[in-house]
Amino acid sequence: MEEHDGAGLNRPETKLLFLICLSSVLLRACSGQTLNVFQSERPEWSLSHLAVHQSSGAVYVGGVNRVYKLSSDLAPLVTHNTGPELDNQACYPPLIMQPCSEPLARTDNVNKLLLVDDLHSRLLACGSLYQGVCKILRLDDLFILAEPSHKKEHYFSSVNQTGSMSGVIVSRDPGRDRERDATLYIGTSVGGKQDYFPTISSRKLPKDPESAAMLDYELHTDFVSSLVKIPSDTLALVTHFDIDYVYGFSSGNFVYFLTVQPETETPGELFYTSRVVRLCKGDDKFHSYVSLPVGCVKNRVEYRLLQAAFLAKAGSVMAAALNVTERDDVLFAVFSKGQKQYRRPSDDSTLCVFTIRDINADQREAAVVLSGGRKPGAALASGKRRPVHKSAGAYRRWFLWFGH
Amino acid sequence: MEEHDGAGLNRPETKLLFLICLSSVLLRACSGQTLNVFQSERPEWSLSHLAVHQSSGAVYVGGVNRVYKLSSDLAPLVTHNTGPELDNQACYPPLIMQPCSEPLARTDNVNKLLLVDDLHSRLLACGSLYQGVCKILRLDDLFILAEPSHKKEHYFSSVNQTGSMSGVIVSRDPGRDRERDATLYIGTSVGGKQDYFPTISSRKLPKDPESAAMLDYELHTDFVSSLVKIPSDTLALVTHFDIDYVYGFSSGNFVYFLTVQPETETPGELFYTSRVVRLCKGDDKFHSYVSLPVGCVKNRVEYRLLQAAFLAKAGSVMAAALNVTERDDVLFAVFSKGQKQYRRPSDDSTLCVFTIRDINADQREAAVVLSGGRKPGAALASGKRRPVHKSAGAYRRWFLWFGH
Repeated sequence: MEEHDGAGLNRPETKLLFLICLSSVLLRACSGQTLNVFQSERPEWSLSHLAVHQSSGAVYVGGVNRVYKLSSDLAPLVTHNTGPELDNQACYPPLIMQPCSEPLARTDNVNKLLLVDDLHSRLLACGSLYQGVCKILRLDDLFILAEPSHKKEHYFSSVNQTGSMSGVIVSRDPGRDRERDATLYIGTSVGGKQDYFPTISSRKLPKDPESAAMLDYELHTDFVSSLVKIPSDTLALVTHFDIDYVYGFSSGNFVYFLTVQPETETPGELFYTSRVVRLCKGDDKFHSYVSLPVGCVKNRVEYRLLQAAFLAKAGSVMAAALNVTERDDVLFAVFSKGQKQYRRPSDDSTLCVFTIRDINADQREAAVVLSGGRKPGAALASGKRRPVHKSAGAYRRWFLWFGH
Repeated sequence: MEEHDGAGLNRPETKLLFLICLSSVLLRACSGQTLNVFQSERPEWSLSHLAVHQSSGAVYVGGVNRVYKLSSDLAPLVTHNTGPELDNQACYPPLIMQPCSEPLARTDNVNKLLLVDDLHSRLLACGSLYQGVCKILRLDDLFILAEPSHKKEHYFSSVNQTGSMSGVIVSRDPGRDRERDATLYIGTSVGGKQDYFPTISSRKLPKDPESAAMLDYELHTDFVSSLVKIPSDTLALVTHFDIDYVYGFSSGNFVYFLTVQPETETPGELFYTSRVVRLCKGDDKFHSYVSLPVGCVKNRVEYRLLQAAFLAKAGSVMAAALNVTERDDVLFAVFSKGQKQYRRPSDDSTLCVFTIRDINADQREAAVVLSGGRKPGAALASGKRRPVHKSAGAYRRWFLWFGH
C-alpha cells in the first residue's frame, strides 16, 4: 500500500507533461501518439501535482486554487475550489484558528501535495494557505470529508512553491493494522519557520477522517519524536537555509526523499546539493535517518541540481543493462548542471537512472560511518562540496539516459 | 513572598564579598568593621550564590560541588555535596535519565541558582551537571527532598558558568494560592542548545516536592507557552548568540531580569548590550514580555556591560535625592566601560542606581511601541547599537554612586 508523490516540480506545467510522457516511455514510445490535453481555467493557475487511483483509473490533478478529478483520458469530471482566500503568512496560528492583527489579502492556494490514500479510498490535498493545511477529499466527488486545522500538527508550512514539499503514504506493519491506519511521511521546506515546522516528520492517517489523532506525529515524547527540525546552528552557517523536497517514494522497507538544499561548508557562496534521505518504515524515532549526496557526471561535467524524479520498475531491457530483475525499482532523475543555478537552472541537464539496490548499498555504508548516537538533525548540515564521484557514499553507478 | 537571586556574577568570590558589603552599606558604613569570613574547602571551588532565610537568619551559599548552610555570622553548619560526578554535556537526555554513548568524565557541578523558597520552607539549588538539574533541599539539614530529573522540563541548561542563570520565585495570585503553589521564573543562557532549552520560562513550584508537576511550564499548549526560545534567525545573525541572566528580582506586579547579550545589528564585530527584561507576574502567556537596553554614562563615557546588580529599599537619604519614598525599590547595578569587553571587563567601572519607577515608565513607553502582536522572541534580536542616553526607552535618569 504505497502512493508516490506524483511530481514536485519547479516549473510545474512543463514538468508535469514531461512526467506523464516519461511514464509512457516506460510502456511504449511517447512520440507519434496523439495526447489528450487538460488545462486549468486560467493559464497562470499552473498545475503541479498528479495522482492516479489505480483501481478506477481516475486521475487527480492539483494546481493553483483547484483540485481536479479527470477521467483516465484526461476529461474533466469534478472541479474542487481551494482558493483564493483571505490570508497572511505572518498569522500564526492562522486566521481560521484565531483572529490575527496582520493585514489580510486574497491569497492564491498553491497545491503542494496530492496523494491518493488507497488504504482508505480518499484523497489528501495540502495547500499553501493557512500555514499549509490539508483537506481529505472523497475520491468520487471531491467532497470534503475533513479539513483538520485546530492543532499545530495540522500546519505543514506556508511556503507557496510547488516542489518544496513531498509526501509518501505507507501502511503500518500488519500487527498494528487492525484499524487500517496508515502513516504519512512528509518532507517540506519551512520558509524561515524552522521553530514551528519540522522539515521531515511522520504523521498518523487514521481510518476515521474526523479522528482527533489525524496528522498527529506518530511519536511525540519529551525526548524523541518522529520528526526532524532544521537545527539553529545550521541557520547560523547559512542564513536562509531551507530544504526543498522534490520527490518522495517508498521501496521495500524504506521511505526515500530526494531533496535540494544549500551546502553549509562554503560560507559566502551559495552552492546547492541534491541528496537522498532514507528512513526505515515504522521507525517512529527516526533513528534510521540517513542523508547522502546524489548527482551524476557526463563527459566529466557534474550535474548536481535535481529538477524532477520518478520511480518505476526496471523492465526487461533496463534490467539486463543494470544487472537487476525486471521487478526491481529504479529511479529516474533529471539534474541540471553545476551546483549554483538551482532557482534558475541552466538548459544543460541530464537524465540519470539509479537502482534502489545501489542507493541502499551506499546508504548502508554511510549508516555505519554515521552511527554512534548522532542525531538526525546533525546530518542536515553535513553537505560537503566534493565531486559526486569522489564522495564517500555517493552513488557510484549510474546510467546515462539522455541529456542535451 | 519573593526571593531574589542573591548574585549571579562572573568573578564569583570577590563579587560575593562585594555584594555582602554593599548590603551592609545600605544599613551602615562597611569599612572599619571586622568581617567574618567563610571560605570553601578548596580555593578553586569558588562560591557564587548566597541566599538568606529571613525568619531564621540562616545563610545558604552555593559554590562548585557544594551547598553550605552557615549561621548568620558565617559559621559553617551543614555541607551538602553536589559533585563532581561522571557526566558529558553532549548527553541529552543526561546519563541519569538514559545511557549515553559519549565518553564520560568526572565533572564539577557549578552552582548556578540558589533560592530560598520561603512559601514552602525549602531551598532550590540548581547546578551545571546533567543538563542543569535542580535539587530541592530541606532548610534545616540540606536533606534532599526531591531531585526531579525524568522530564525535559527538569533540565535548565548545562552551561557551567555562574552569572549565566537567574531565578525569581513568586507566589501565585491569592485566588490560585489555596494549594500554596508558587512560580519560578528562570532565565538562562543555553550554550548552543536553543533547540532544547528556553532562555526564559516560568515553572510550577507545587507544595509537594515530589509532585509530578514540579518545574513544569506554567502554561504549555500548541500555540502559546510560558517560555521564550532564542529564535533560529537570531542565530543566523550572530553565530554563537546567547543571553546571560546576571540578576533577577521581583518588584510590585512585575518580574525583572538583567541580562547581557550580543547585539545583532553589527555583524562581524561583537558588541554586547545589557538589558532589562520585564514580565507581568501571572502572565503565563508571556504577552507582557518587554526588553530594553540599560546602562549609564559618566563624564560622557558609556558603561554598558552589566557585572552585578542588587535590589534594595531606597532609605531616607537616597529617597530624598531620587524623589521616591523610603520604601520604594531601587536597583544598584555595576557596569564596566564600553560594549566589547564583556568576558574580560576593563577595570573602568561604575555603580549606578535606578529607581524601579523610572524603569517602569520606560518599559511602558516601549510596550506601546512594541505592541501589535509581536512575539517575545522577536524582541530578543532588537538590540540596537545606540548610545544609552539616546535610546528610545533607555533609562533617562540615573544616579552616579561611585566609580573608579
